[in-house]
Amino acid sequence: MRDHLSQTFSALADPTRRAILARLSQGEASVSDLAEPFLKDMSLPAITKHLKVLEKCGLVTKTREAQWRPCKLNGAPLKDATDWMEQYRQFWEESFDRLDAYLKTVTAKKKTKGKKHGNKK
Amino acid sequence: MRDHLSQTFSALADPTRRAILARLSQGEASVSDLAEPFLKDMSLPAITKHLKVLEKCGLVTKTREAQWRPCKLNGAPLKDATDWMEQYRQFWEESFDRLDAYLKTVTAKKKTKGKKHGNKK
Repeated sequence: MRDHLSQTFSALADPTRRAILARLSQGEASVSDLAEPFLKDMSLPAITKHLKVLEKCGLVTKTREAQWRPCKLNGAPLKDATDWMEQYRQFWEESFDRLDAYLKTVTAKKKTKGKKHGNKK
Repeated sequence: MRDHLSQTFSALADPTRRAILARLSQGEASVSDLAEPFLKDMSLPAITKHLKVLEKCGLVTKTREAQWRPCKLNGAPLKDATDWMEQYRQFWEESFDRLDAYLKTVTAKKKTKGKKHGNKK
């Protein structure tokens, strides 16, 4: 069996599944409501298969209380995934610091050039 | 072609690839250095395949300067992935708030029980 973190990342590695989560972040929804926007591009069994992947890793749960058993977003697996990524924060901050420094140099050069051109007029 | 976010999540959905990133977070390393701890469980081609997945989504880059071309961790794709997850922060915070509230009730009940037992003695 795959470890939980791998299951979560794998579930997130699909635009349809991420779109389902985005829809559920607006509120609970039935399977048919969730499926509706995708039915022009894929079959209902394909959509329920995506939903099962999300359920398996715990990102989606089906409410037991209501008779129509709506689907619900459960954020807990995302917390584990974010915690894992946080260890690497310094690596993306470093690369954005470098980009920022580079863009400042480029902008500074452009400004200097602009002034030079201005003086010529 | 898969979208970039799906590629990143897919690359992260494997414990060997996450272990390679963890090793690279300590500093640049050659392919053979990276492979070394995994060679008792898998072949060198299997490891280089994992590395190629990480390179394809930009999480690992090979330095061009040095002759031995060490691998380097590049955090930028992780930033996009974290930004995506951040939208759902309220969902995991909510579930942890509920867990916290539940644990407080359980602890409070235990304390009351403990006191009752103490009185009996």
